[in-house]
Amino acid sequence: MSVKFAVLGHGVVGSGVVELFYKNKKSIEKRAGTEMDIKYILDLRDFPDSPYQDKFTKDFNDILNDDEVTAVAECMGGVEPAFTFVSACLSKGKSVSTSNKELVAEKGDILLRIAKENNCNFFFEASVGGAIPIIRPLHRCLAANDIEKVAGILNGTTNFILTKMYNDNMPFADALKLAQELGYAEKDPTADIEGHDACRKICIISSLVFGRHVYPKSVFTKGISQVELCDVAAADVLGHAIKLIASVRRMDNGKILPVVMPSLISYENILSGVTDVFNAVLVYGDGIDQAMFYGRGAGKLPTASAVLGDVIEAVKHKVTVFSQSWESASDDSFIESHKKLAARWYFRVPAGTDVPEGSYEHENGISFITENVMTLEAAEAEASKLGALAMYPVFE
Amino acid sequence: MSVKFAVLGHGVVGSGVVELFYKNKKSIEKRAGTEMDIKYILDLRDFPDSPYQDKFTKDFNDILNDDEVTAVAECMGGVEPAFTFVSACLSKGKSVSTSNKELVAEKGDILLRIAKENNCNFFFEASVGGAIPIIRPLHRCLAANDIEKVAGILNGTTNFILTKMYNDNMPFADALKLAQELGYAEKDPTADIEGHDACRKICIISSLVFGRHVYPKSVFTKGISQVELCDVAAADVLGHAIKLIASVRRMDNGKILPVVMPSLISYENILSGVTDVFNAVLVYGDGIDQAMFYGRGAGKLPTASAVLGDVIEAVKHKVTVFSQSWESASDDSFIESHKKLAARWYFRVPAGTDVPEGSYEHENGISFITENVMTLEAAEAEASKLGALAMYPVFE
Repeated sequence: MSVKFAVLGHGVVGSGVVELFYKNKKSIEKRAGTEMDIKYILDLRDFPDSPYQDKFTKDFNDILNDDEVTAVAECMGGVEPAFTFVSACLSKGKSVSTSNKELVAEKGDILLRIAKENNCNFFFEASVGGAIPIIRPLHRCLAANDIEKVAGILNGTTNFILTKMYNDNMPFADALKLAQELGYAEKDPTADIEGHDACRKICIISSLVFGRHVYPKSVFTKGISQVELCDVAAADVLGHAIKLIASVRRMDNGKILPVVMPSLISYENILSGVTDVFNAVLVYGDGIDQAMFYGRGAGKLPTASAVLGDVIEAVKHKVTVFSQSWESASDDSFIESHKKLAARWYFRVPAGTDVPEGSYEHENGISFITENVMTLEAAEAEASKLGALAMYPVFE
Repeated sequence: MSVKFAVLGHGVVGSGVVELFYKNKKSIEKRAGTEMDIKYILDLRDFPDSPYQDKFTKDFNDILNDDEVTAVAECMGGVEPAFTFVSACLSKGKSVSTSNKELVAEKGDILLRIAKENNCNFFFEASVGGAIPIIRPLHRCLAANDIEKVAGILNGTTNFILTKMYNDNMPFADALKLAQELGYAEKDPTADIEGHDACRKICIISSLVFGRHVYPKSVFTKGISQVELCDVAAADVLGHAIKLIASVRRMDNGKILPVVMPSLISYENILSGVTDVFNAVLVYGDGIDQAMFYGRGAGKLPTASAVLGDVIEAVKHKVTVFSQSWESASDDSFIESHKKLAARWYFRVPAGTDVPEGSYEHENGISFITENVMTLEAAEAEASKLGALAMYPVFE
């Protein structure tokens, strides 16, 4: 018997799914243990040059009402109509694999519940870290661990910009323009550079690891648009790279603290070597100590690879994989205020300020890293007292 | 119903499995979807101080003949009696999870077949890369990819030694002694420093990725005992780190070429940043481009974490996971001769030799990297012609 699936959306990721599937159809079928084929591709646009003319439909109901379709790849993006379509598919027992991080970050708990009620699966490996296997390793391979902390470089656009600032001394605005020219950044780059994209991804990771839905609005999020060349250069002298780090950790009081902030990472930490558009996720657990997963966080075929990997899993699993799931959250009282974030801090202060030993004086002021750990709240008071020109946490 | 499993061997890894299981029992049971407990621990020694006295047995038949035991963690090491015990368990339909790379590299195909015939699983995530999830990502998460090449730093001891040589200018013999003092190297360090341990691991990866059993004896293996400080320093000047790289690639003629060799890695490659006792595996596929998995490749709890992750999987899967499997090989005609390994090469030649531009002259000779790619065979002829004092491939 041949398993039939549908692809919702024929944009960058959706067309990548179709392309990669037909390229590797034989080995994919071997791994899935069954013959497979794409029966429908849903898109409102026409693709007269596509070799798969016979598969295109503009009517979602063709897919929904075809009992032969048992799995669906959702590659449309955005919350609607994706949420309506995915809910409908899951309600009919069709497993859905998605690359749509907005959908998972906003509606993951609801969709996971519908999947469970209908004995099928809602998979979303592609929604975090593109090609990088991270969702499945987190809940399966590391299942024996108590995971304390996860930190990642989860947005390729901002990592590209920071890499250009670092390697080529290119100012933020020029690096952003280059990213747009290369197709790494959208015309409106807000979601990337202000950290919203990374925020959605750390919400998904936080929900999966700690078991309750974390909404983007509950996460303190700061982007990289204020990062200056002089701080990138000074951090380097102090033995650190500046990266946009999305992290979540469990606090001693049992709450969790997810944040997205430009942060200093010591060159001793493997995350500091993640450059260009690459993403990486570092996981800290009591058994493993630390493990990192690295790869392309976006792009046509990398994202398609993750979506298809999930489709293959969906075909192999006839029942709900309950470990990849979390509960709804009635409020966000389990989330700690970002003001409690404890770290050592990078400060840049005006020339002439009284600073500790080991500080680095340069033409834009004096940069140093505090010896002591303090909360963001205390660091802000200190920054105000010193008249600090810049301040970033050191990720450790 | 509570699922009962047994732990074979109470050495470093086996005792780690027991410790980690009881530490995280509650969350492990949640992820497994069932209550679980250890019913037996097999060891010929006595452990009068262990809090789990009632579980110890010296008779393997207690475990084999107890139908309540449905899963087994094998942490004894070595081919025998592990092979006999594991075969017997699988034949009775008890799934086995192992950390034993010798066993998998020598007998994996046979054990996978027995598991299949008895509708249970033989899992071995812990046998490669310790805590690092690599086996499951390779055959599940990356299932949509055509994997062309895999390369890894698969031995922590040699990576520690090379890191010391690099960071502290410490000669090989001193670094080895330090590794022994720290417990990273055995009293007889041959298996590590001569590459046999890395060889077993690349055999397992090669078998899984390319589908046919690759035996250690078929793999050209060179260790690090000949690596000199002056080459480590010269490689650095030329923008590269020297690492013990175990790799396998598919050749144009369809054969595969696994090798273990000290190799130069450009600082542009993320693998070059893997230091100390850490391991990493870099996978190249047509969908993902590249992805890297990084973490602790050995140690009590890291390895235990991987073994337990597999036990949890075994408990969740009532049928054989057929994608994690390979065929026996009647001969090694599908393995290409190492003489066909194509690379650019690092040469160190005596002072006064005619060398290309960009060479680095130092007190132990002149070091350079060839501009052209050539086979190992051709490189050896070139080395002989130049009277080369050292020669290493550049991994790309």
